[in-house]
Parts: sequence; structure tokens; C-alpha cells
Amino acid sequence: MQKFPDRPTFVTHLECGKTGTRYAADQLHGLSETGSPLIVRYDLSGIAAAVSRDELENRPADLWRYREFLPVRRAENIVSLGEIMTPLIELAGFKTGEGRVIVKDEGRLPTGSFKARGLCMAVSMAKELGVTKLALPTNGNAGAAMAAYAGRAGMKSYVFCPDDTPEINVREIAAQGAKVWRVNGLINDCGKIVGAGKETLGWFDCSTLKEPYRIEGKKTMGLELADQFNWQLPDVILYPTGGGTGLIGMWKAFQELKEIGWIQGRLPRMVAVQATGCAPIVKAFDEGQQHAELWKDAHTVAAGIRVPAAIGDFLILNAVRESEGFATAVPDDAILKARDEASRREGMLMCPEGAATLAAYQQELESGRISANETCVLFNCATGLKYPLPAMDDRIDVHQPIDFTSL
Amino acid sequence: MQKFPDRPTFVTHLECGKTGTRYAADQLHGLSETGSPLIVRYDLSGIAAAVSRDELENRPADLWRYREFLPVRRAENIVSLGEIMTPLIELAGFKTGEGRVIVKDEGRLPTGSFKARGLCMAVSMAKELGVTKLALPTNGNAGAAMAAYAGRAGMKSYVFCPDDTPEINVREIAAQGAKVWRVNGLINDCGKIVGAGKETLGWFDCSTLKEPYRIEGKKTMGLELADQFNWQLPDVILYPTGGGTGLIGMWKAFQELKEIGWIQGRLPRMVAVQATGCAPIVKAFDEGQQHAELWKDAHTVAAGIRVPAAIGDFLILNAVRESEGFATAVPDDAILKARDEASRREGMLMCPEGAATLAAYQQELESGRISANETCVLFNCATGLKYPLPAMDDRIDVHQPIDFTSL
Repeated sequence: MQKFPDRPTFVTHLECGKTGTRYAADQLHGLSETGSPLIVRYDLSGIAAAVSRDELENRPADLWRYREFLPVRRAENIVSLGEIMTPLIELAGFKTGEGRVIVKDEGRLPTGSFKARGLCMAVSMAKELGVTKLALPTNGNAGAAMAAYAGRAGMKSYVFCPDDTPEINVREIAAQGAKVWRVNGLINDCGKIVGAGKETLGWFDCSTLKEPYRIEGKKTMGLELADQFNWQLPDVILYPTGGGTGLIGMWKAFQELKEIGWIQGRLPRMVAVQATGCAPIVKAFDEGQQHAELWKDAHTVAAGIRVPAAIGDFLILNAVRESEGFATAVPDDAILKARDEASRREGMLMCPEGAATLAAYQQELESGRISANETCVLFNCATGLKYPLPAMDDRIDVHQPIDFTSL
Repeated sequence: MQKFPDRPTFVTHLECGKTGTRYAADQLHGLSETGSPLIVRYDLSGIAAAVSRDELENRPADLWRYREFLPVRRAENIVSLGEIMTPLIELAGFKTGEGRVIVKDEGRLPTGSFKARGLCMAVSMAKELGVTKLALPTNGNAGAAMAAYAGRAGMKSYVFCPDDTPEINVREIAAQGAKVWRVNGLINDCGKIVGAGKETLGWFDCSTLKEPYRIEGKKTMGLELADQFNWQLPDVILYPTGGGTGLIGMWKAFQELKEIGWIQGRLPRMVAVQATGCAPIVKAFDEGQQHAELWKDAHTVAAGIRVPAAIGDFLILNAVRESEGFATAVPDDAILKARDEASRREGMLMCPEGAATLAAYQQELESGRISANETCVLFNCATGLKYPLPAMDDRIDVHQPIDFTSL
């Protein structure tokens, strides 16, 4: 409902994430000529002159409070479903030292996942640049977010999911007004179909990092964290990593904030969390590679991070290394166990991808790569309500009359 | 993660909602001696002297910013899972006159429903008053909320659902650490079992209005609306009405705000929305009764408002009448149609109970009881993701290769 005020904007140009070649702002772009993601650049000193941290704190607690750091030029092009600042929830029961264990609950965003951050920005920019048809490959959540924002903006949307995507996700995407296909293959196979539709029908390709603005939306996770931590960032960030836009985006946010002097000192160590059944980034990190190989026979209960090949692999690996972080993989049984513990003991029902970060926290505390004295933020990237839960027959009863003496 | 600051509190006493008889604050209470809900009363002039509207606006955007209006005495007893201020989302496509059509999206709260507001307060007060075992009858969402907060506070919880409660809801409650039963009956039958457990095992009964603090939590919907509308309330509020705690709570909030002079003039007309398959309040309203009769053979897709008998019926009817509002019922097909339209056209996936308010808005615009020039707030009480969606075969395709020429 919020009326978004006009504010000055500061995008100067885009540049190739690999070569640094410049591209003009305010034009429709996909990948760079080298096939790499395009990165949005700003007049950071202009931002610093236009707005202060104190001023930000008096604005509504949503993603658009960071307007000067975002690409949308005209307020009327903002397509919004209420992108509230997501809460930080402490898992006190998992604390073993001086450090705090904190979940950032991204499941509170529109369509129930952090995909809303990227897609509200991509769709708003698509609107600003005159696009009317959007397409996307998805493991579920990105498709729902794109469909919701596209429908709200009066655009058509076409979504392609692996055929084993849970029915709840496929129906959600359709309910949001998109045309959806179940594709015989994984997300990279879906991506190929989007590419063909782009050629044939002129669809705008909203795939992860194939358009420049989803990173800018995901960047707000970093801006928000800095803001919520009173511009003193936590020690470690554990991030469930599929396409990695959020990790890249947060790292970009921290660079921009450092550049304008709003944060100082050591930045958080960025930890890319994957599943042992699909861990291309972990393998590349461990082997000291710049790029990751395609992961064969990818499988994990955490479908959102079942991404065998990430186009931004080198950007993820750069951020992890520059931050002195690492990449790590956790097995599915540890993911499910962490999910159960967090909901049962702390009331925090995480999605499997989010639970993977808790499993990774436990694993790396054990390994010594994380210290109990470090404050760690775990990203719960979607509401746990979208995912099937186990039967839990030990906690669900049907016998009547109730035998109170047994309780 | 937020550390809640100590703040002055202003509860003076509780009083019987029917007779006005006074009960002491800071003691454990259920119903009054006449079997009526107890209402919490405050030193309102004390609140007015302690805090201003401007001061509130500088506090974090969550339910606890209204601490002076709430019963919890000591900050350490607050049990929180991040009760953010829920966003207002305009449905511009449903606007036909000068009035705005706005959804308040309560699905963003912990455990995905507005039940979190009442239960975070009830559990915090239970903690403050030394309770360790909680029980509740539920159609699903209240049980999940109670279980989550109880688990977080280290309490045991026991939950009773009608046996046709969707599996997703029953599992969610169990995942949050409660012991759950599927009961052969409706929610009032579940309530009888809780009553028996209370006698036998000393459970604290958290049923709607059978403890005094869920209303105080739900009251924050009214405080928040006033705050978000800059202390100029909308013309009409459409509220999906089962037990009615939220409607009663909002009306109480408006009285308190009026008393201290923070709002002036005409209050919103309160509209109680029910389903034609379970409409006891509508029948009582139409017949000019003070109390509602038990509704027989209750059925509706909107399970949350399938409440055949509400213990606070007279309080609901009072609020509706005092506000010059009304009660109305909508059929299930209109509910499902409204849900589809809102998600497809506006990106707003509502729960069936929330969609009932949109269906009621459309129906009453037609009937003339609501004018197109009135600004109306519709309460979406839970995330639409918790509810089964239809197959939508016209929007979901499996054929490959894709025939692009058909698109």
C-alpha cells in the first residue's frame, strides 16, 4: 500500500563480471559479450552525499528503504508485494560459546522465499525497460516469485521446472498466473528451453545472473544485515548456495558500504553451503579452481540448492575466498535432523536449504573451521511450510478416548 | 534477535466481559465466574503519559513496539519469533471507485498466521505466571503457533485437531514439538478434551478467549493498522470470523486509542465475514440476538472459520453493532474464485479465510452495504501456502518438446 516517494538514483553503468567491459545503463541487457553476468555500478559518492544511515533508519522497514543503492529510476515502476525487513531469530539452544547463532528468516517475504528480493527488482526493471514477457527455469521458489510480480505488473510469464518439482510448488506458480511446464531434466535443462523461447518468441530471460538486477535485489540482504546489526557485521554468514546470487549480492553490498564508509574493519567470512549430493562449488573451492565443473547425478532433499552448474561460479568462489570463508557440503540426513531440532526446540521451522546452513554450522563447529565464539548468521531462504514434513507418528495420535494417565 | 528493552507496564486489573466484575492482575486466570472471557484493563492515562505516537515510530517495526499497551511485565518473559509489522498490499485491480482495497497480509507472521499474535502473548504471559504445560483445540494454525512458542519457552504442549484437519497442518504442529491428536469431531469437541485434560493433568487451557491474553496479542492488529494508516483509520475492516478474537481485539484497540486521544472521529465499520456453511454470527446478527446458536453440520473450505460456537459471540456482535458494521456469509465457490483472482491478477495468494473477505467485499459492493468510495482493509489471516491449491491443468503442461508456435 505504501506510496513510494521519488528519490535520486545513482546507477552509472553496468560492467562485465569477468572483463570489466562497460555497458550502458537504462537499456535491456542479458549476459555480457563473453557470456558473463553483468554487474550494476553506482556513483557511490553520490549515494553517500544523498543519504545517511540515520535517515535510512527513519524510513519504512522494507527493502525499498535502500532506494539509492538500487537500480529502479522511477518510483512508479516499483512492483511491490510488501518486501518487509526480515527478522533475525536467535537459536539460543544452539549456542555453545560467546558467539550467537542467528537465523535470518527470509520465509517472511512475498511468495514465502528470498527469491522475492531478486525478482521484485528484475520485474520492476523489466517494467521500466518495457518488457512484457518473462521466462525462467526454476526449482520452484524463483518461479513463484517471478509469476507473482509479473502478474501484478501485467506481464506474461513462462516457467520451467524439473519434473520432480513438488506439486505444491508447481501449483503455486500456476496460481500466481504463470504458464508452467514440468520438464524431463534438471534446472540447467529447463534453462535451455528458456534460451530457445528467448530466441523464438522474444521472452526476457530472468534466469539467475542472466539479467543484471536480481543481484541488486539480493544485495539488500547484505544492506539489511548491516542495518539490523547497527553497521557492525557478524563474524560468519552461512548461505545455502545454488546459483549463488545472494552470496554474490551480499558481498557486493558489503563492498559498497565499505567504499562509502558506512562499515569498517573486517567483513564477515562468507560460507557457501551445499549438499553432499550436489556440491560443485565445494569441489572447486577445495581444488583451488576458478570455475566449477558440472555436477553429475545431482540429488538432495534441498531442491533449491540442487544446481549442478552455476553461471556465477567464479563470482561465488571470489567472494568466498576474498572474505577468507570456505565452501562446505552437508549430507541430507544432517539437513533433516537440523530442521527437526530447530523447529522442535526453538520454534523455527526452516526449509531444507535453510536447515543445511544449521547442519553446516554444527559440522564446522566440530571441524574447528567455525569457533563457538563467532557470531554466525544462517540464511533460512524460504518458509518451511512449502516443503513436505515427515510423518512423525510418535508425536501424532488418533486414539480416543484420550488416556490421560499415559501423559 | 532483538533485545527487548525494559519498559513501564500499565495493566491495572482484569474484568469479566459480561458483568464487569474485577479480577486481580498478575495471577493465572481462565474464564470469569460467569464463564465469560476476561478482559485486560490498563491505566490508559498512564500509557498516554509514558509514550507518544512519535516515539513509537522510532521503535523496531514489530508487535512489541506497543509494549505499554501489552500485559507482559518483564522483558525477559517475552517469547518471540520475530513478530514483524505485517505489510499492507493494495489490490488495485479490485478498486472500482475512490476507495482503496487493501489486504493486511498476516501470513508473514511466525508459523505463517495471525494466530502468532495471540499465542506469543498467551505463552509469554504463561511464562511470566509460571505455567509449564499448555493445551489447545485448533483447526490448525493456532496449534502450530502455540506449539512453536511453547517449545521456544521450554514448555510442553498438547494439541487437539478435528480429524479432517489437513495433514500438512497436523505435521507442522508436531514438527513444532507438540503432541497432537486427530479427534473424531469438530473444534468444540476438541475443546471438551482440553477441558478434561485441564481437570486431570493441570494443563493451562489456551483456547480462544478462555485465557485473557490472546485478545491482547490480537489487539496489536488494530494498533498496527492505526499506526500504518498514520492514525487515520480506514472506513471498513472485513475480518474472517471464527472465534472472533481478532475482531474483538481490534475493537478494543480502537477504544483504547480513542480514549487516549491518538485517534479521533468515526471508527471503521467492522464486518464479520463467515462462510455460508458455518455462519452462526451472521444468523445472530440478522436476528438481532445477543448470543449465537450452535451451528449444525458446519462445513466450509475455509477451515479456520469453521467454528460452530464462539464463546465470545456477544463480544463480536457488540463490536459489529457499535461500529455500525454488519455480519455476512459467502459461499465456498465465491471464496475459491476470489482466491484465484487475487493470486492470478495481483500476485497475492490468500488463504481461503482471507479470500472469504475479498469475496465478501465483492458481494457487499454489489449489495450496496459497502460503497466503492470506502477504503476497505481485508485481513488475510494466514499464508496461502498452507492450503491445498487446485490442479489448474490449463496452466500446467508436461508436453515436450515445447511447441513454441502455440504460445
